[in-house]
Amino acid sequence: MQLKIYNSLSGEKEIFQPIVEGIVGMYVCGPTVYSNVHMGNVRTFMSFDFIYRTLVFLGYKVRYVRNITDAGHLTDDGNIDNDRFVKQSRLEKLEPMEIVQKYTVDFHQVLEKFNLLPPTIEPTATGHILEQIELTQKLIDSGFAYESNGSVYFDVFSYNQKGLNYGELSNRNIEELFANTRDLDGQNEKKNPQDFALWKLASPAHIMRWNSPWGPGFPGWHLECTAMSTKYLGEKFDIHGGGLDLKFPHHECEVAQGKACNGTSPVNYWMHTNMLTMNGQRMSKSTGNYINPIDLITGENNFFEKAFHPTIVRFNFMQAHYRSVLDISNDAMVASEKGYIRLMEAMKVINNFDTQSFKNNESQWSVKDWKTNTYNALLDDFNAPILIAHLFEAVKTIFALKDGTLQINQSDFELLKSLMNSFVYEVLGLQDIEENNNEKLDQTLQILIDMRNQARKSKNFELSDQIRNQLLEKGIELKDSREGTTYVLNS
Amino acid sequence: MQLKIYNSLSGEKEIFQPIVEGIVGMYVCGPTVYSNVHMGNVRTFMSFDFIYRTLVFLGYKVRYVRNITDAGHLTDDGNIDNDRFVKQSRLEKLEPMEIVQKYTVDFHQVLEKFNLLPPTIEPTATGHILEQIELTQKLIDSGFAYESNGSVYFDVFSYNQKGLNYGELSNRNIEELFANTRDLDGQNEKKNPQDFALWKLASPAHIMRWNSPWGPGFPGWHLECTAMSTKYLGEKFDIHGGGLDLKFPHHECEVAQGKACNGTSPVNYWMHTNMLTMNGQRMSKSTGNYINPIDLITGENNFFEKAFHPTIVRFNFMQAHYRSVLDISNDAMVASEKGYIRLMEAMKVINNFDTQSFKNNESQWSVKDWKTNTYNALLDDFNAPILIAHLFEAVKTIFALKDGTLQINQSDFELLKSLMNSFVYEVLGLQDIEENNNEKLDQTLQILIDMRNQARKSKNFELSDQIRNQLLEKGIELKDSREGTTYVLNS
Repeated sequence: MQLKIYNSLSGEKEIFQPIVEGIVGMYVCGPTVYSNVHMGNVRTFMSFDFIYRTLVFLGYKVRYVRNITDAGHLTDDGNIDNDRFVKQSRLEKLEPMEIVQKYTVDFHQVLEKFNLLPPTIEPTATGHILEQIELTQKLIDSGFAYESNGSVYFDVFSYNQKGLNYGELSNRNIEELFANTRDLDGQNEKKNPQDFALWKLASPAHIMRWNSPWGPGFPGWHLECTAMSTKYLGEKFDIHGGGLDLKFPHHECEVAQGKACNGTSPVNYWMHTNMLTMNGQRMSKSTGNYINPIDLITGENNFFEKAFHPTIVRFNFMQAHYRSVLDISNDAMVASEKGYIRLMEAMKVINNFDTQSFKNNESQWSVKDWKTNTYNALLDDFNAPILIAHLFEAVKTIFALKDGTLQINQSDFELLKSLMNSFVYEVLGLQDIEENNNEKLDQTLQILIDMRNQARKSKNFELSDQIRNQLLEKGIELKDSREGTTYVLNS
Repeated sequence: MQLKIYNSLSGEKEIFQPIVEGIVGMYVCGPTVYSNVHMGNVRTFMSFDFIYRTLVFLGYKVRYVRNITDAGHLTDDGNIDNDRFVKQSRLEKLEPMEIVQKYTVDFHQVLEKFNLLPPTIEPTATGHILEQIELTQKLIDSGFAYESNGSVYFDVFSYNQKGLNYGELSNRNIEELFANTRDLDGQNEKKNPQDFALWKLASPAHIMRWNSPWGPGFPGWHLECTAMSTKYLGEKFDIHGGGLDLKFPHHECEVAQGKACNGTSPVNYWMHTNMLTMNGQRMSKSTGNYINPIDLITGENNFFEKAFHPTIVRFNFMQAHYRSVLDISNDAMVASEKGYIRLMEAMKVINNFDTQSFKNNESQWSVKDWKTNTYNALLDDFNAPILIAHLFEAVKTIFALKDGTLQINQSDFELLKSLMNSFVYEVLGLQDIEENNNEKLDQTLQILIDMRNQARKSKNFELSDQIRNQLLEKGIELKDSREGTTYVLNS
């Protein structure tokens, strides 16, 4: 059993060797909580949820750290007032931490709907200001960073001159980078345009600020992940994940910070999830080709014919490999719903079979071969769509068992049943949809009440009493009054 | 409209005057996340949820801060290894922040079940280490604290000598306090036994630690609330709440820290919730008179005859005033369930009335008087039980309206309807219980299927077709096979 992971650093699938046998340290860049989580983020976090679940299923003990970026995410190094939180809070006249709370709560609620497990640690950027100040000081002391007007910048040029290689993750050539960058406002306090902020001076108007050896300010975005991953997973850990859009500059900066701080490349396996598109087009608010996760679930949107249960959406997402572009569309969602229903019908069948009935059977279908195939899918860079294809082979087998056109023996049956439950519920994280059929109950009871009234009219009291008593036995009490017959449901 | 709040500081009900007209700053001491939240905590947080909801209902804009204590809650100042997190994490072989995450997630899930609103800011102790170090330094600089062996203590004696009054909140006499305290291990580094830790030296084994001007350590528990309330609500704010057990020493220390740091008493109104008992006895794991919130909801316990829906528990809790002892018992819970069902029946009636039918009525019952009474209950120190008593008067009225034994006019009806909905759902935070009647639907359908089979046997095809077709109309399809008749529910 050898797990292979596609490593963005090498561009190849590599055999996974954890630093400590049996234990995995995994860090995933979490959301910036200044707005509602968008669909592409949900896709990324769901992919890593599947990866986390798979690692646990394969027997690893996983410390899974996913952070909350609640401070200092600058859209533009050069302009202090661009700190997204401050902008938003001025708009809504809220304290920045109120924004943070509002969107953190939303984030958790949305992910819970899609049945994502919480990470084992969920640290916040504001919870690690001290650690970020200390790392900044360390980088200054070792010549990798410099102070300028109360801000501190990472010195990319000096990093490269020391024989380290800025650009190794994203395969960028540093000279090219320098050539392609135009000068931005306020960047004159940097030695080179590629230098990135570790600490930013806060203007008097900037309300999210902390004291530091360089005066009041706030940390740069890239540093928080280095601070938190080092604290909870160590200077070198197994897996670092995130969306493809974070590869450069964010993850590139993390590599540089790690190597500069600790003298070692921080991550053994870099994993990046691909984009999500809708109807073949990039999602974008400006073009209108955009949908919020909640609107897909409630059905309040112009792109899908109806509401889709979160577990259907999850099943749909799982049908694309994490490194492929995932395109969502009405047709694909409807097809996923059909597939889900068929899969869950098979789950009902297999979970309600009388195991004893397989006692004297001989196997005409190899569960062991099937098991090997399913494991191979998981071990081959977490290939969920291939796993699902194998699940549908098993579905065929399960219906054949039901129809009596195929036999397997008892131990094979039990293995199949156990694996199917693990794959569907634990690994893929699907859920049963609990339908609320109150309306259908009401309608069915109206049919019986009408029949009873008909029977009473035609003096068939045997039938009318029978209906009344049979319902009463099941805890449904009929009450006759001038206005008609109503019912009470007793527990 | 004058809101009165019982202020623990004065021991009297006082007219509430917010510092800024129309805006309330409220801080409530949150949970220590090293174990599952217990019932008494739920009562406290639910009480403040009701208070928060009431303030919003009365038109205030509320900034409601409830913290998470995830560091430095020492059970015993003198023994470093007693830091509860470290103890627990060694036990479970987890990183302290994994414990924090596990129980923070549990805490949020439990409170969500009981329909508590999230606070507007939910800061953590570990998220404010820098602020705590700065406050500690400030207290040293101003002579209110001293360093001793790498730890820093608040100097209670010096505080009192400066004419300030340690003990003012809990009405304790400082000399008495000194006399009653025996020397504890390691407390010899304190000048006086009443001095409390602001910062504690971390032993090499202590894994939850931060660097400080006094060496590696961790903050004392009392300081975090001063740091966070000052940061988000200011040096002086309106309301500070918590359980009665926190009044001394925790809140007493907060008063002292606030006055020493900022030269002003930090809080205008101190509010304390009373205890929760079960069957008249204090809850305690050691005596066995103990139940977890979740066990009450699932029914898995030895004290209650069945499971109670969280909203029934909430309704039960609301029937005691927050300053009274709340005793939970099977009888009380059953009674609350009955009351809840009657209240919700009335809500269904009032929300389904045709408003037009009140058009030409004259009012025989004063909604305005009733409104005054309900508001008076809320304004009198948030008296939920009195409010509920008034709601049941309205319930009587609603049933009388239904029976036609009482009349009110249309505008009165609309006022009553609007207020009832606000009080029940927004202010008390009750929820409709959505029953899942799938089992009853199945049983009812079996009755119809049996009747149809009977009809077919006796060649009454008119009846058998009628049953089949009537069900089909409602989206219930009968399928006959050799094994019998099954049904499919179409949407």
